[in-house]
Amino acid sequence: MKFQAPKGTRDFDPRSMAWRTFLVDAWRTVSIRNGFEQIDGPIFEQLDLYKVKSGEGIVNELFHFNDRGGRELAIRPEFTPTLARMVAAQANSLPKPIKWFCAANFCRAERPQRGRLREFWQWNVDILGLDSATADAECIFVAIDLFQHLGLASEHVRVKISHRETVRHILGKMGVGEEKMQAAFELLDRRDKIEPEQFTRAAGELGLDVETVDRFDQICRMKYPAGRLDLLREQIGLDDNLHDLESLDEQLRAFGIAEWCEYDLGIVRGLAYYTGTVFEMHEISGAERAVAGGGRYDRLIELFGGPPM
Amino acid sequence: MKFQAPKGTRDFDPRSMAWRTFLVDAWRTVSIRNGFEQIDGPIFEQLDLYKVKSGEGIVNELFHFNDRGGRELAIRPEFTPTLARMVAAQANSLPKPIKWFCAANFCRAERPQRGRLREFWQWNVDILGLDSATADAECIFVAIDLFQHLGLASEHVRVKISHRETVRHILGKMGVGEEKMQAAFELLDRRDKIEPEQFTRAAGELGLDVETVDRFDQICRMKYPAGRLDLLREQIGLDDNLHDLESLDEQLRAFGIAEWCEYDLGIVRGLAYYTGTVFEMHEISGAERAVAGGGRYDRLIELFGGPPM
Repeated sequence: MKFQAPKGTRDFDPRSMAWRTFLVDAWRTVSIRNGFEQIDGPIFEQLDLYKVKSGEGIVNELFHFNDRGGRELAIRPEFTPTLARMVAAQANSLPKPIKWFCAANFCRAERPQRGRLREFWQWNVDILGLDSATADAECIFVAIDLFQHLGLASEHVRVKISHRETVRHILGKMGVGEEKMQAAFELLDRRDKIEPEQFTRAAGELGLDVETVDRFDQICRMKYPAGRLDLLREQIGLDDNLHDLESLDEQLRAFGIAEWCEYDLGIVRGLAYYTGTVFEMHEISGAERAVAGGGRYDRLIELFGGPPM
Repeated sequence: MKFQAPKGTRDFDPRSMAWRTFLVDAWRTVSIRNGFEQIDGPIFEQLDLYKVKSGEGIVNELFHFNDRGGRELAIRPEFTPTLARMVAAQANSLPKPIKWFCAANFCRAERPQRGRLREFWQWNVDILGLDSATADAECIFVAIDLFQHLGLASEHVRVKISHRETVRHILGKMGVGEEKMQAAFELLDRRDKIEPEQFTRAAGELGLDVETVDRFDQICRMKYPAGRLDLLREQIGLDDNLHDLESLDEQLRAFGIAEWCEYDLGIVRGLAYYTGTVFEMHEISGAERAVAGGGRYDRLIELFGGPPM
């Protein structure tokens, strides 16, 4: 009988494994030199762990099964719920900030796409217990340190940064009510994947008139280099609520990575658990999908039974 | 909500992860310095891949599930079927011998036991396309090289070696028919896990009388240091069919590892696919379960659609 690797997975022969090892070793080297400790969890978790954060809808995107005792389990689609579970269990006994990384494989049951397989390797870098823009800037710094370690410079990579509260504030001013805010975020997240007419129609359903939609679209398309928050403030007409972004901007300059970064209010990240700064990293042309992304999640550990942090 | 790691799995916090990394790095170092290249496969495979080698019975020992297209998949319980699939697909284009290793996680749906979890990390070292005792001795050498790398010596570890054809020959001489040979092997494999009376009764069902069972049990309990095949031959009264073991014995001395090794005809290894030399490695007291095991599988690649090798 002849067999192939399952749909959406890869075999790593010595040549492709050498690339994987090179990359995973680079993740480890960069994490460790920035003071992060490696952790890992099981390849499968209780199915309920994923429902806490993402609701019942997540089940269709997971490979799930029962064990002989009838327990519902799922292969991990991402690391954050495992991390939150581990931190929640030990939070009171761990010195803060907790700086942990994980370099491991994850699986999603979705249709394989270009650059998006069913089994994939991912690097996770998390800081917990440090409630300041320093933590956001340090996570961004570690990713940039990897790019530099791999021989890339700021002319190859663009870090796009946004802030969910700032976007929420702008949307609110434009007339999006709190009850429609999540829908507005989801629409924003899909903006580049749908037709302009479809975008305008959906924005209309959120209560925005054509002129406001145009203005909104325009704001999302503007980019502001890090260090120039004054431009953003001026052009959007914001006179408040930029406190978090101002602190972050200061940190990006202090870390010496401002030239890699720009503000892009079109970035919101699909996941519902982000609460503040969010970012994505792209090859400079922007033609490919983001190679990295992340953000601040201030209430996640509580959600998994841990203390506020 | 509070969550724990699923039954039979482990969380790796920084301290336990450091141990895992230390061990996996040791596996890599030793493999590479012995000329092996690293490979890996998907964390799940088609369920049928495991039925080829082990029959329908294996399904209960696997975590299995369907994808949205209705394909039957299973988390890998071991690496050999993946290896055989990969070798079968490329066998004609690869220079021989193929020397590959894999350091990865595997999952079995069985009841967790002391030293045997549902998710575990395992090092696989395989030589393919080399039909001589050198390949068997080299695999044993690589494992011993790891023990030495970890600071252990021959007074800490015992390598127990047997040969399925030799055991088959002895059993045949004692009156076990070919049709009952597999059952005899399975009985031998379970010998230390069942009561003596149960063993005698089961041996009787294979057509052995009490005296022969005693003799058989005695043979299984005798150990012969490597380099002293003459003792084995003499005490068992074998005058032929030791050719493979003689070649292996010569190689063990040539590799300088004879002092770690002894012949123990009670070792047969449970898996049906071994065809010749089989071995297990134990902490010297023998109190714990084997820390490593393996053997020669001469017809496996053909079974997966590859050429004879």
